[in-house]
Amino acid sequence: MVRRIVIIGANASGIEAASAVRKRDRTAEITLITKEKTAGYSRCGLPFVISGTIPLFKDLIVYPPAYFQMLKLNLRTQTIASIINTKEKTVTIQTPEGAEEIISYDSLVIATGAEPVVPPIKGVEKQGILSLRSIEDGEKIEANIKAGAKSAIIMGAGLIGLEVGVALIERGLQVTVVEMQPQILPQMLDNDMAEHVKSHLEQHGMKILLNRMVEEILGGDKASAVRAGGEILTADIVINAFGVRANTKLALDSGIPLGETQAIKTNAYMETDFEEVYAVGDCAETAHAISCRPICPKLGTVAVRQGKVAGANVGGDNVRFLGALVSTITRLFDVEVGATGISETEAKKNGNEIVVGVVNSKSKADYYPSAKPIRVKLIVEKKTDRLIGAQIVGGEEVTQRINALSFAIQKKMTIRELAKADTAYAPQMCEIWDPMVLAAERVLMKLR
Amino acid sequence: MVRRIVIIGANASGIEAASAVRKRDRTAEITLITKEKTAGYSRCGLPFVISGTIPLFKDLIVYPPAYFQMLKLNLRTQTIASIINTKEKTVTIQTPEGAEEIISYDSLVIATGAEPVVPPIKGVEKQGILSLRSIEDGEKIEANIKAGAKSAIIMGAGLIGLEVGVALIERGLQVTVVEMQPQILPQMLDNDMAEHVKSHLEQHGMKILLNRMVEEILGGDKASAVRAGGEILTADIVINAFGVRANTKLALDSGIPLGETQAIKTNAYMETDFEEVYAVGDCAETAHAISCRPICPKLGTVAVRQGKVAGANVGGDNVRFLGALVSTITRLFDVEVGATGISETEAKKNGNEIVVGVVNSKSKADYYPSAKPIRVKLIVEKKTDRLIGAQIVGGEEVTQRINALSFAIQKKMTIRELAKADTAYAPQMCEIWDPMVLAAERVLMKLR
Repeated sequence: MVRRIVIIGANASGIEAASAVRKRDRTAEITLITKEKTAGYSRCGLPFVISGTIPLFKDLIVYPPAYFQMLKLNLRTQTIASIINTKEKTVTIQTPEGAEEIISYDSLVIATGAEPVVPPIKGVEKQGILSLRSIEDGEKIEANIKAGAKSAIIMGAGLIGLEVGVALIERGLQVTVVEMQPQILPQMLDNDMAEHVKSHLEQHGMKILLNRMVEEILGGDKASAVRAGGEILTADIVINAFGVRANTKLALDSGIPLGETQAIKTNAYMETDFEEVYAVGDCAETAHAISCRPICPKLGTVAVRQGKVAGANVGGDNVRFLGALVSTITRLFDVEVGATGISETEAKKNGNEIVVGVVNSKSKADYYPSAKPIRVKLIVEKKTDRLIGAQIVGGEEVTQRINALSFAIQKKMTIRELAKADTAYAPQMCEIWDPMVLAAERVLMKLR
Repeated sequence: MVRRIVIIGANASGIEAASAVRKRDRTAEITLITKEKTAGYSRCGLPFVISGTIPLFKDLIVYPPAYFQMLKLNLRTQTIASIINTKEKTVTIQTPEGAEEIISYDSLVIATGAEPVVPPIKGVEKQGILSLRSIEDGEKIEANIKAGAKSAIIMGAGLIGLEVGVALIERGLQVTVVEMQPQILPQMLDNDMAEHVKSHLEQHGMKILLNRMVEEILGGDKASAVRAGGEILTADIVINAFGVRANTKLALDSGIPLGETQAIKTNAYMETDFEEVYAVGDCAETAHAISCRPICPKLGTVAVRQGKVAGANVGGDNVRFLGALVSTITRLFDVEVGATGISETEAKKNGNEIVVGVVNSKSKADYYPSAKPIRVKLIVEKKTDRLIGAQIVGGEEVTQRINALSFAIQKKMTIRELAKADTAYAPQMCEIWDPMVLAAERVLMKLR
């Protein structure tokens, strides 16, 4: 009997799930449904089209139509899934022509992603408040720049806000970022580390206003200013980068329970509370690999890993997703920034007793030209001596240092082990005592 | 009572040992003895002075005289230690003026390093066979280039041979490398990985002759050609890069036993067979962290770690060196190369049953400009599913990928865990499935 698999969402996690099913089931009828015009593109690449580094939005398409054909995946774009009937095992969809259709499934994967948060600010209904989640969003920003926009206000100093801010400065715009919190990147970094990133951004001309709530969006029909902390700031573009939230309307309407993060509740197999209904990616709640608390990290790496797990299970395997460490990296102008595991702020909030070590070092031997300053912070659980988090600002090879520390966390490395760890050395590439190891020494000095 | 510590050798491991003693003992009389004119410089940096990247040899001095003063270390340069009397606890030294002096020690650290191997080839006694181990060696090569040398023959395609070869090509010389083995970097890489490095070097103009034994060094008083595999190759400079061997004459003359690698035998505390006599760095035998076999890896990172352990123990601690993974990295022109743990060749020689996975991927998202090809090879022990070795050629951030995999090996990560591991992602910095994780998948496919 041919199994019918329906996947709602056709980006990172949805396609990963479809591919994992196909690997295990050559005959299954696999249907992917997306409301978007374009499927299989990289959202994380959008800022680099805005900046001009990547020529065209369509360059971001990682899975072209040929991929769907090759894997015999039935892709239905511009199609809306309006209701799931978990009893009858059907999904009601609206076709691009507006017709309603009911399709049956044996297994269903919900990969509806996330969407920009729109807080209830006065004036939020105005035209022209832009965001950067989809290719359409990107095209709107691009159109504004082409139409001569010279300045932008970005509401929110999270990862997306700052990446868009950098892109717009690279396109010659004046950029002001307004953030409610007392620091930039509040989800990713502790304040001490964020301060270094902030100075770097300011040196490149980004204006950053912290502790400023956006009270009102001003302008005629089209947003052209915001009032924040009592001050009126005007700009040609106003960008909403308050954050994204799990897209759960379909689940809610269909009686599929959410968890405490307001994302779809799942277990380690990526199953929802309903049999043969899975949820993956930005719309799904998952467990933090260290704290075990429910989180919804909304990261590409997590999305593909969850998609792969759900797809394997749909295909007959019995695989678990082991939780997320929320490893996050970016490069802003020429400063690399990375974090993994638990931050100092988070640990304190959770009541963990921790010891922290920070070191300033160099990315190469001190005498080697172009060695860059690098700052590494480690967070260690006092009770167990185990590394539970790390943050890095500056230097080079930050991504793979974050991966190294993330492997250490995943394998429960103690700070004593890290201080003794074997690392590689060549003067043109790193220091003989890697900053990670030096930072571990700093922690040990406090533990002695 | 003031303790007297004598350290023979004043580079990486010797100075690290001295610093570790001083940290624990403020009054000890610490004497460092070196036959060299300059102490505390980075040998690994020598090729980059030859290439012109670093302006002067003295820029390589990491520990200037002020460091020795600050730590109250008694540094005696151009001084030769000729005999150790382990019964009387004395060292006989020859001062720069040629006088003999006997100094007493409570603890002794031997850090005599290594020296270039000179095999018994016909003509090896000729003048002008250069090597690159010390600043003096570097100055001789530099003098030859300044005097108009246009071509060089390098005997040996190990790390130093190739790094010098690259430096000389960058200075405009024609370079031919002659290697006895059927591959370059035989100590570091398996042949399949070495082949990729070789093509890269050849593309940059390096002539590489494999399977060629150097049979004779030719020329008048001064070496000006070699006969290798029957062919006569002429050049303005002939460089000996056959390798280095532990400098053990002093130990041998003093009755301090060597191990099976012909380096000074030590235990995990870096002690030799004699009480209060330690050996560290390139002259010391140590254990491989995976195979537990005796090795003498001759790496800077190992040297400083061993020096720190010996110094801590001399200072009253009780610390162990946990063995070396022999993590090795370099960049040759613009290709990064790294290895850690056990190679496929080595594992097979040791009779380990292994499974190997190789993947070709990209250093960044495929659509991101300047993404570079990267090749990752993993070696997994079949019995335990554990990662025991890794090699990487190409791409970016190879050093920290090697560190990540080295942490994984040190913490006994299985290949299943690596295939599921949480890694960080941003399109401008890496792929969503890191090549390390993809390579783990390749191994798993073979294990299933």
